[in-house]
Amino acid sequence: MADKSKRTGRGGKKREEGRQAAPVKTPDAGRNTSDRGGRIWLYGNHAVLAAIGNPARRKHRLVLTPDSARYLENARIDGAADVAAEIMDRRDIDRLLPPGAVHQGMALLADPLDPVALDEVIGRSGGEQVMVVLDRPNDPQNIGAVLRSAAAFGAAAVIVPDRHAPEATAALAKAASGALDRVPLVRVTNLARALEQLKAAGFWCAGLAADGEQTLSEVDWAARTALVLGAEGAGLRRLTEETCDFLVRIAIDADADSLNLSAAAAIALYEVNRAHSSRS
Amino acid sequence: MADKSKRTGRGGKKREEGRQAAPVKTPDAGRNTSDRGGRIWLYGNHAVLAAIGNPARRKHRLVLTPDSARYLENARIDGAADVAAEIMDRRDIDRLLPPGAVHQGMALLADPLDPVALDEVIGRSGGEQVMVVLDRPNDPQNIGAVLRSAAAFGAAAVIVPDRHAPEATAALAKAASGALDRVPLVRVTNLARALEQLKAAGFWCAGLAADGEQTLSEVDWAARTALVLGAEGAGLRRLTEETCDFLVRIAIDADADSLNLSAAAAIALYEVNRAHSSRS
Repeated sequence: MADKSKRTGRGGKKREEGRQAAPVKTPDAGRNTSDRGGRIWLYGNHAVLAAIGNPARRKHRLVLTPDSARYLENARIDGAADVAAEIMDRRDIDRLLPPGAVHQGMALLADPLDPVALDEVIGRSGGEQVMVVLDRPNDPQNIGAVLRSAAAFGAAAVIVPDRHAPEATAALAKAASGALDRVPLVRVTNLARALEQLKAAGFWCAGLAADGEQTLSEVDWAARTALVLGAEGAGLRRLTEETCDFLVRIAIDADADSLNLSAAAAIALYEVNRAHSSRS
Repeated sequence: MADKSKRTGRGGKKREEGRQAAPVKTPDAGRNTSDRGGRIWLYGNHAVLAAIGNPARRKHRLVLTPDSARYLENARIDGAADVAAEIMDRRDIDRLLPPGAVHQGMALLADPLDPVALDEVIGRSGGEQVMVVLDRPNDPQNIGAVLRSAAAFGAAAVIVPDRHAPEATAALAKAASGALDRVPLVRVTNLARALEQLKAAGFWCAGLAADGEQTLSEVDWAARTALVLGAEGAGLRRLTEETCDFLVRIAIDADADSLNLSAAAAIALYEVNRAHSSRS
């Protein structure tokens, strides 16, 4: 790999503020997953239990079926005592949530998490560390699925551009299956600047692209790696691609279409984790 | 690896008939994606173009926005001339489809594909060959996502139990992004018997389980491999697990929850494909 010191590190000093997202039209839009003051209904066992266990999550209402209440009592979840549970039947919970929401007998009305700045997660991250950067992800379920894989492979954060990524809606939280309360979702105002900031902090930025010069398994993965993935179909934007240190491809069948964004992220996270583990 | 000849091959001679599914309640239930006679509306560029290009797909109505019609004319898609296009505006297409369907200006009313028998795909498959077996997959979007990854890595088929898997609905086809018309989705009446049939045909059946004795990258992958994945949460059923030749795990963080089914399938397909490619 090329010498790290050759880099300009342009923009690396500027503070990248994580900010609340402006509302973006998503498949959730118009459904009743959010409440006054930006509160959202989280639902499903994994999403609710992770939020309950997250001290940084402000909780307002916890609604449970009698079965779920018994389960929570037996499981002695940390933080479960912080919010009084309202017991109601399944259909009453249905009525609080968007149609078809698979709540598994649990829902929690909570505030969105406070924004996390990129500086902060860089400061926190240790020696071997992976970040996932999503360039214009347009599907909240895809972001949720990426968060879930990021949690599984111990990634430090998932980074998205503030103006071009949907909010952390209930659908995103459900797909994340609890990972939204475990892996920071960092919103940055300028993605190219965030990449420069990562590079200045010693991260190698690998852009996933069909025409990448190396395959995933050919790369000698650096201890600090940022995996940069583009939107499905559109791929990486030109500036994002140019800001990456190198491009890498997933070896797929020549006549096949591309992989789903979350499948590509899962494979890349797996491969970097495998390389890191085999060294340690 | 153990000697293949040691196996009993019990049930391997019995013909496993692929059959049409009995209707299963899915998130699609009650929405207007299907028509009389089991016809379904496929929508979205990839799903519609793949169906148009599949001579085995019986097509009834192709509806296009003027933009999509121009695109199809310029792209000279094989099979596009087989069904007369009706040009209509975006909102009229919206009305034919379930609410919120992202159709990208294209929808096709078509018959479901004819069932494919397991015998047939086994007969077709060459030397190096991978199958994916899903034990009680309950989410049509997950099955679609697995089909898409199967297509990307050249798998021969995705096998599901007939009674315990949702039908090939529009939501499944959309998530498959065209792969439903490229990779056979084989429905079998008895999954354990199907595994025996695969074993008799020389396939090694690898069950993915959190307590697998080896990790994915430690396995010396056989040329003929069937990857067997359980439902999310529940995992593999006991009989399915016992019928597998061996169990394998994806190395994830000790304190992390499981991976999403489609992420796990993508990673396993990637790893087997990588092993096969590095040998050839």
